[in-house]
Amino acid sequence: MRNESAKVELKHGAGGRAMRALVKELFVDRLAGANDGEIGLAAMDDGAAIPLGDRWLVITTDSHVISPLFFPGGDIGRLAVSGTVNDLAMMGATHVLALTFAMIVEEGFPRAELERVRDSIAAACEEARARILTGDTKVMGRGEIDGLVLNTTGVALTSRVVSDAGLEPGDKIILSGTAGDHGMAIVACRHELQLEGELRSDVAPLNAMIAQALQAGGPQVVAMKDPTRGGVVSALCEMAQKSKVGIVLDGPSVPVRDSVRAAAELLGIDPLMIANEGKALLGVRPDAAERVLAALRAHPLGAGAAIVANCVESRPGQVILETGFGRRLLAEPEGEPLPRIC
Amino acid sequence: MRNESAKVELKHGAGGRAMRALVKELFVDRLAGANDGEIGLAAMDDGAAIPLGDRWLVITTDSHVISPLFFPGGDIGRLAVSGTVNDLAMMGATHVLALTFAMIVEEGFPRAELERVRDSIAAACEEARARILTGDTKVMGRGEIDGLVLNTTGVALTSRVVSDAGLEPGDKIILSGTAGDHGMAIVACRHELQLEGELRSDVAPLNAMIAQALQAGGPQVVAMKDPTRGGVVSALCEMAQKSKVGIVLDGPSVPVRDSVRAAAELLGIDPLMIANEGKALLGVRPDAAERVLAALRAHPLGAGAAIVANCVESRPGQVILETGFGRRLLAEPEGEPLPRIC
Repeated sequence: MRNESAKVELKHGAGGRAMRALVKELFVDRLAGANDGEIGLAAMDDGAAIPLGDRWLVITTDSHVISPLFFPGGDIGRLAVSGTVNDLAMMGATHVLALTFAMIVEEGFPRAELERVRDSIAAACEEARARILTGDTKVMGRGEIDGLVLNTTGVALTSRVVSDAGLEPGDKIILSGTAGDHGMAIVACRHELQLEGELRSDVAPLNAMIAQALQAGGPQVVAMKDPTRGGVVSALCEMAQKSKVGIVLDGPSVPVRDSVRAAAELLGIDPLMIANEGKALLGVRPDAAERVLAALRAHPLGAGAAIVANCVESRPGQVILETGFGRRLLAEPEGEPLPRIC
Repeated sequence: MRNESAKVELKHGAGGRAMRALVKELFVDRLAGANDGEIGLAAMDDGAAIPLGDRWLVITTDSHVISPLFFPGGDIGRLAVSGTVNDLAMMGATHVLALTFAMIVEEGFPRAELERVRDSIAAACEEARARILTGDTKVMGRGEIDGLVLNTTGVALTSRVVSDAGLEPGDKIILSGTAGDHGMAIVACRHELQLEGELRSDVAPLNAMIAQALQAGGPQVVAMKDPTRGGVVSALCEMAQKSKVGIVLDGPSVPVRDSVRAAAELLGIDPLMIANEGKALLGVRPDAAERVLAALRAHPLGAGAAIVANCVESRPGQVILETGFGRRLLAEPEGEPLPRIC
């Protein structure tokens, strides 16, 4: 008899607790580890880092299976570039050396749509000052794959790696803008919801904004993570666990657009637990918090940045929501509530 | 009215002329190019290369969509590691710095099969002295993807890049072993053919063997390519075009296993036009040919190596087959005859 975990489920691709458990059990514990001084699989960070002379080579990979391929605010091409550029940036590597681009496409897929995706990739690369230097093309038969999936791997050099695990009690956590925009735009688009106010994905390459923040904060920026699958809560839970601190999230201080809040209430989805694709969480030493906040706000993509959480000694590994009326412990999401969000 | 090329066809993923045309038109001509001194998309080589100090950083990416996932001689895991390691090796980069591993899996896929793939990845990594340092997991719903696809990106440093375009008239071309093993094993397996003799894929990481050849030949090894999709003929056509030389392929000198030849005749497939996953073509200056051949033969994976072709001034860009009874021009294959061969 097989147990219930003998088959892969949708939640195993949802970026949260279930996925981390599967990946850890199946792969991380069994594939040869990183050498001393490297950041490899075991760190389960946004990417890997290898010392190279006096710098670090940072490498990150992402597949993109989003449905629909085109949505308000972006498409799979913009997502593929931004997702990988942002994972590099979250490791502190804001200057992209090269991107790779691998596509798997279904027989019969319209060339005109590939051209749209290509144009969007070109535009996002320009924004990120990144270049695609190599690629791969595979075609699967009709019905063997749903349309188009992409993989983008990114490589960058940086003099300092920022992990997602450097928090200490007292540190402040900054969110670079409104929460939930990407996820809610995808739900609305997928279900053809007619909602008041515009719902648009926030998908964007954040490396220039992060470069400004790192310039302002230097080594006082001690942890970064982009709240993609599973949203702000999932990312904070992971940061709290890895740094072994408690994180007190100040609910009312989290910026959420009215349109996102309205859609979230209608659908019963928490905007703090749904994917963002153009936001970052930065853990910063208290002295530097205002300086880093100002640097983020000086960039168009960080105009809505806010300090949203504090790190505490109690409750290590957990996230506590301060609602304004009281406190409650947030359970780590199993994963993103929506399949194929990115 | 759309023209007939308005949709993607299976041949566009088959590695030959049709794919190169699609990729060139759609992507290479429209995405920002490489900087001076880099090898980027426009080279359409096995990977990209960026100067880094006195070395080159080589990057290559490959998606794997093979069906079936498990086949005689290997599986998708061994293929994913070998394919990427070999693309790096073909650029001269035989010491792998890091591999990334991105999987897209169908809901309901058995965990036990993922474990088999994982074990196979671990074994192939050990053979190649390569390590997976970062990864990504996505799950698609039932029927949205056929089982499992993988992407592997590889990064390596090398002091010298070998392109696939360095041939001159007079150069010899060595094939490192028998032709057609992988492709024929997949056809046989897919169609449950009962054939005399064993058909097994040759899938293997070639970097150690290539390192020996490069040590023996040094700068006299002027071009390398692994004859994957479209086989030996497709790879030679590409090499001939890029180097602007004619290539005379000496048919009788190409090693082909009896079992592969028998299956090929039965099925009407040319073993020189079907994928290999553990073979390399090396273009070598005439003086070094015997030395490089000996170095290849000294490695278990190169025991069957042979000089199979000569480069000539006439017919630049074309491949001429010397049958033993006469000569004929080989048309470049549109692509691999089988879908999802790798």
